[in-house]
Amino acid sequence: MKAKHILLTAIILTFGLSATAGAADGKKYRWRLAETWGPNFPIFGDASKNMAKMVKEMSDGRLTIRIDSANKHKSALGIFDFVKSGQYQMGHSASYYWKGKDFNTMFFTTVPFGMTAPEQYAWFYYGGGMELMKETYDKYGILSFPGGNTGVQMGGWFRKEINTVADLKGLKMRIPGFAGEVLAKLGASPTNIPSAELYTALERNTIDALEWVGPSLDLRMGFHKIAPYYYTGWQEPATELQFMVNQKAYDSLPADLQKILTIAMKTAAYDMYSQSTHENGVNLKALQTEYPDVKIRTFPQPVMNAIREANDELLAEFAAKDEETDKILKSIQRYQEQVRAWTKFADQAYLESFESNE
Amino acid sequence: MKAKHILLTAIILTFGLSATAGAADGKKYRWRLAETWGPNFPIFGDASKNMAKMVKEMSDGRLTIRIDSANKHKSALGIFDFVKSGQYQMGHSASYYWKGKDFNTMFFTTVPFGMTAPEQYAWFYYGGGMELMKETYDKYGILSFPGGNTGVQMGGWFRKEINTVADLKGLKMRIPGFAGEVLAKLGASPTNIPSAELYTALERNTIDALEWVGPSLDLRMGFHKIAPYYYTGWQEPATELQFMVNQKAYDSLPADLQKILTIAMKTAAYDMYSQSTHENGVNLKALQTEYPDVKIRTFPQPVMNAIREANDELLAEFAAKDEETDKILKSIQRYQEQVRAWTKFADQAYLESFESNE
Repeated sequence: MKAKHILLTAIILTFGLSATAGAADGKKYRWRLAETWGPNFPIFGDASKNMAKMVKEMSDGRLTIRIDSANKHKSALGIFDFVKSGQYQMGHSASYYWKGKDFNTMFFTTVPFGMTAPEQYAWFYYGGGMELMKETYDKYGILSFPGGNTGVQMGGWFRKEINTVADLKGLKMRIPGFAGEVLAKLGASPTNIPSAELYTALERNTIDALEWVGPSLDLRMGFHKIAPYYYTGWQEPATELQFMVNQKAYDSLPADLQKILTIAMKTAAYDMYSQSTHENGVNLKALQTEYPDVKIRTFPQPVMNAIREANDELLAEFAAKDEETDKILKSIQRYQEQVRAWTKFADQAYLESFESNE
Repeated sequence: MKAKHILLTAIILTFGLSATAGAADGKKYRWRLAETWGPNFPIFGDASKNMAKMVKEMSDGRLTIRIDSANKHKSALGIFDFVKSGQYQMGHSASYYWKGKDFNTMFFTTVPFGMTAPEQYAWFYYGGGMELMKETYDKYGILSFPGGNTGVQMGGWFRKEINTVADLKGLKMRIPGFAGEVLAKLGASPTNIPSAELYTALERNTIDALEWVGPSLDLRMGFHKIAPYYYTGWQEPATELQFMVNQKAYDSLPADLQKILTIAMKTAAYDMYSQSTHENGVNLKALQTEYPDVKIRTFPQPVMNAIREANDELLAEFAAKDEETDKILKSIQRYQEQVRAWTKFADQAYLESFESNE
């Protein structure tokens, strides 16, 4: 056997094996992800870690993703730009943080009085939501995916009880974003304050109320020690975090790694909803056991109705201004009407059947 | 360069590539899955197809799973034995079908008056449910995983309205499994009838009522044409289908394929819950539009209370008989109590806030 033939055999053997491993071209991809959260931030930070771990294990190390928390990249709300520019291949954040750049990004996180998490996942994956999100983000060269759901967020911690719509007038409340604008229509003074200063602001009456997340993340903030009323939620019924991927970086991956990445993001998002449900249950129990004086309240129906009307008016104003906004809101509203009819007969009727007639 | 050296180089090159592809040893695994459902069965059948497609794409064809429907293997309820013996590497079915073989398998599908789907996923993945399921199935050499959730199943189609507990006495109802035993305690005559004969049995008054799934799958059966009352559910609040894997077959896979398979099953299960939510919404709307005379009802509270009491008594009897049953039921009941407290303040309070005070 001549050397040339042996070399040829070697090449064939090599390419042969390469072919059985398919897209496994032997190339290793080392990516970086920038997240909005600080290091070891519970639940939210677990979602990005869970995703990166799944990708590494499923790809047998061919794609690894290093996670930089906000303490490292120093720009909690710079994630959109990091991913757009390709400085980071990926980001983990929330779509509504980009409403200043593109108003329509807001609707892919949650909408006040909008869908619950199971309803919203049905909309994303079977009701056209993913397609609308793609249209919105395509112009920035960013692929956007669900990144983990908190479940229904609580309405917030209040130092005084809210009995009438008049009680909202002049109320100084930390409630950022769209929900703040809704309350402003009813005379409240919404404000945003960095998380590290929230406790002191509430303690010193700089603010009268604040909303954060839910028992899962609120307890560590200590608000229950200084605000006796904890209200149920309306403003963020199904907050979905966001994974972002730079389109060019995504295109550079072989097809199997693209699939591994996409499914790892999807699973990590669903998992975070399960984890949030768990942590809310555990921490609500701890709250009620250790702080039995905290009063969990639902806003009186006239207050809820007034807030919902203000919300509907505001959304209608925005829809009238922009064709794409109108298209997205119509999709959400029509889908919600359809799926909610089901939720009422299914989950709601079931949950209510536990109230005894005593 | 000597031939021998070239050959050596070839070997190194070859193994080198093999090593960069890691566990991608070039070996292709061709598996078979037996499912309980007939071919092209909607939603349930989509879950196994979705899983197999994800596995194929993520593994770049290294693991492919051929799906045999019931028309092929001729044993809809033989899936447990197929997987136990290794005749099939995988199965797609529902754990409560095996209660005749092992009573405790029943609790990993759903429990009457048990958890909703989001609560139950939290229990499986964060509350110890997966560990208990593993303990139950380990003795059979089977790995069991969630296989897709239907959401809350409807209470069923009734030819007559149920107003009091006395109306259940002598009621001939197709309601299989544990829920049938519960109704039997209240004087009903539960029966099981093959699905193909259900419509005729209801039409000819062989039975007075039946339960199937929900709008997602009921409409194609035509029950709404002959039974005017459609009751909301209690008996299967979160029916979770089941993927089964033969332990030895699983152990024979390289680590990356094990991970790909496990995550594909998990995602397909979560996805089926989203798809069920979607299909229930779409089909409920079709039902209400095309058949406005169908009356959707909730059992009166005294009826629900009587059914729940009968259910609790029956579960307590079973728990007293078997240590493992007691352990599983305690886990479910304790977890449900904790997570339901949260669901009441979160989803239930939110859904109820939409009822206006008019």
